[in-house]
Amino acid sequence: MKNKILFLIGLMAFLPNLLIAQSDSLQVRKIVNQILLDGQCYKRLDYLSNSIGGRLSGSKEAEAAVNYTFDILKKEGFDSVWLQPVLVPHWVRGQKEEAWYWVGKKKIIPTICALGGSCGTDKKGLEAEVIEVKSIKELQALGSEKIKGKIVFYNRPMNPLFIKTFEAYGDAVDQRAAGAVEASKLGAVGVIVRSMGSNIDKHPHTGVMRVLPEVKQIPACAISTFDAEELSLALKANSRLTFSFKMSCATLADVWSYNVVAQINGSEKADEIIVVGGHLDSWDNGDGAHDDGAGVVQSMEVLHTYKALGLKPKRSIRCVLFMNEENGAKGASAYAAFAKQNQEKHIAAIESDAGGFTPRNFGATTDDAKLAKLRTWAPLLKQYGIEEVLSSGGGVDIGPLKEQGCTLIGFGPDSQRYFDVHHTAVDTFDKVSKRELELGAANIAALVWLISENGL
Amino acid sequence: MKNKILFLIGLMAFLPNLLIAQSDSLQVRKIVNQILLDGQCYKRLDYLSNSIGGRLSGSKEAEAAVNYTFDILKKEGFDSVWLQPVLVPHWVRGQKEEAWYWVGKKKIIPTICALGGSCGTDKKGLEAEVIEVKSIKELQALGSEKIKGKIVFYNRPMNPLFIKTFEAYGDAVDQRAAGAVEASKLGAVGVIVRSMGSNIDKHPHTGVMRVLPEVKQIPACAISTFDAEELSLALKANSRLTFSFKMSCATLADVWSYNVVAQINGSEKADEIIVVGGHLDSWDNGDGAHDDGAGVVQSMEVLHTYKALGLKPKRSIRCVLFMNEENGAKGASAYAAFAKQNQEKHIAAIESDAGGFTPRNFGATTDDAKLAKLRTWAPLLKQYGIEEVLSSGGGVDIGPLKEQGCTLIGFGPDSQRYFDVHHTAVDTFDKVSKRELELGAANIAALVWLISENGL
Repeated sequence: MKNKILFLIGLMAFLPNLLIAQSDSLQVRKIVNQILLDGQCYKRLDYLSNSIGGRLSGSKEAEAAVNYTFDILKKEGFDSVWLQPVLVPHWVRGQKEEAWYWVGKKKIIPTICALGGSCGTDKKGLEAEVIEVKSIKELQALGSEKIKGKIVFYNRPMNPLFIKTFEAYGDAVDQRAAGAVEASKLGAVGVIVRSMGSNIDKHPHTGVMRVLPEVKQIPACAISTFDAEELSLALKANSRLTFSFKMSCATLADVWSYNVVAQINGSEKADEIIVVGGHLDSWDNGDGAHDDGAGVVQSMEVLHTYKALGLKPKRSIRCVLFMNEENGAKGASAYAAFAKQNQEKHIAAIESDAGGFTPRNFGATTDDAKLAKLRTWAPLLKQYGIEEVLSSGGGVDIGPLKEQGCTLIGFGPDSQRYFDVHHTAVDTFDKVSKRELELGAANIAALVWLISENGL
Repeated sequence: MKNKILFLIGLMAFLPNLLIAQSDSLQVRKIVNQILLDGQCYKRLDYLSNSIGGRLSGSKEAEAAVNYTFDILKKEGFDSVWLQPVLVPHWVRGQKEEAWYWVGKKKIIPTICALGGSCGTDKKGLEAEVIEVKSIKELQALGSEKIKGKIVFYNRPMNPLFIKTFEAYGDAVDQRAAGAVEASKLGAVGVIVRSMGSNIDKHPHTGVMRVLPEVKQIPACAISTFDAEELSLALKANSRLTFSFKMSCATLADVWSYNVVAQINGSEKADEIIVVGGHLDSWDNGDGAHDDGAGVVQSMEVLHTYKALGLKPKRSIRCVLFMNEENGAKGASAYAAFAKQNQEKHIAAIESDAGGFTPRNFGATTDDAKLAKLRTWAPLLKQYGIEEVLSSGGGVDIGPLKEQGCTLIGFGPDSQRYFDVHHTAVDTFDKVSKRELELGAANIAALVWLISENGL
């Protein structure tokens, strides 16, 4: 009898959790089905990529992207939709870059592109001898005597032995970020950086570089991995080789732009906000389909899906389409400042900015208890492609919310193809799989829902 | 003191496992690194896809693929390399298929392709009224009165709600496999089958269909998903619509071809064989890069990698490149018969025939104890992309080995993009990611090694 009572007490304690879990599971299935059957994200990405195109901060395309997404979110009729002003840098690429060098009587035309933030060259171009290094450390060991007057060629590849390509990127990207500044300090006149790409191909990868007021600016370009290999061989044969390149990029005056924000108010705890976002801007050479058109349309899909299903989340869900992630993260700062000023309570922010690839994980930067709670939902998400919840993650745009105690979550799609297209002319809509994009949106919408219903 | 002794006994019992596990882990890392740094699979796939192309059984391309892979394996100098004769069907597509119908005065030209094994039409083509059904069951309910003299149009889409696309394929493919035979029994004169594709696009998907000697053959084609939607709409507006198509496909006399086999003899248990394989043949409309050029070059990579690293596996490792998976599986039967005749002991067979996409799992058809053993290696493979070992799996080519007690293992890459390209003109080399292909090869080579060293 005593055992029976204990059993019943145990059952009663367990039952609510069981019921919640079952209702979560059914709701999540509905959310996933809605997106797989009638998702809007793929056609919105088509428009963003093919009708608007690359959307660098300050460009007319960035403005068009703000208007396009704002109009859609307005038409959807969410509880509030607004534009948040952001002052952004306005860097322009100018005319298509040119580069050449000679191997004997053969003129070699490598494919290059200016790094974001670089100054241009003289009109007739820059010509100088090239010195190849594998790292900033190697550059510094050579010292100004060997560097002065030269073009520094950073040629350390992304290490293929990192299974996660973002780790290989992190390991190599200092050449692009700090290469020009460090070379200039030693008297270099220009910089060529091997593209941050996983493959050997002819697509140069642009990306932002550091510019310091106290260091003289020198022109800096990325060279395709194929051409980096060729140039390196040519230098082995002729160490006095001179390299020429011409760029007309320039930094213009800052421009006002916007974060685009839409919200569904929570039905029970409206003051607790969950952000889901990506960034509206992209580089200018491709159409920014993976980086980060995918994150934009997936974030919009979350709100669209709840609305389409008539779901009333307990907490407030806010879709934030950030401006200027690529070269300044001004939208990120502006949003965090706004949240702080209004003393808003952000319980979680989820960013999708790793491409529209097949879902694999979420990664969370939070405390142990919250991580444990997030992990209780992993088995539910597993059937939709999420293997696990990792113990770190976030995103450039949501990063500044951390100091307000917000749990930061990064959506982690498979990373193997990302650095084939990242920041290149081939980051285009045709590289995105409809199903992969939709499954990403589905898992994000599911996780946001679980946090909204159960808190964090 | 007693406790200390017990502890030491425990430690001694545990130590060998620990050491084995450590040595496994190091060896696997070497195998993976070798493939990521100096893998041959991607360039071999380039050749197979771009220099040879689609390799349907009986074609000169299939013959070229046999010669190409045999020559490479010979040159690698494995312990034995041989050709195993297989009599294969020889179906030819003939001239490019044509199809048309009229919507008012507008001539619509849908994209179609003959199903493998179909007979052709008359020279002037086949024209008849169309009756649309969603299933064979619906066809049978209509009965011969409504079907006689008509072209049956099977138009049940792959269900997007199956998260694993192979399940959606399995759910829809009866229309292609049995549609013509069942329609013919009721007096239909031709068949159009909606392509087994995840997307709405203009690429028809071919594939094998059943042909029974006792049932009259009727011409059967696949129509692209886009054109299936259009045709369905046109039929709603005009149920008396007639559809015309012209095909000159035909089945010729059987041809001798080969499985290509190479082996590294085991250093300790040479009589225990582990097979790793894919299929050499492919459909003729694309270049068969994913289906199954990927599996071919990955299987070859396993042997290549051991050789390159100077590894001597304890058990015999046999790479089998099967002929005729697509339309007969004659290579599979021939291989199993050979193994049986020679009383060989196959402890495991691993097939890669689900595309060269990013690795996600292995699936094994075996007993509980062996499954449990396979699962002990999952944590080791996790860092290279394998989430889990599923409790079912295998492949068409290795299937017949089951009755000999062989554990069947299917390599499971991510399936979301497979049915975008499967059996179409866009199953081409450019759709394969080098890193995804290599990581697949790496995980397969790792698993084969673990089985070889530890038994099963």
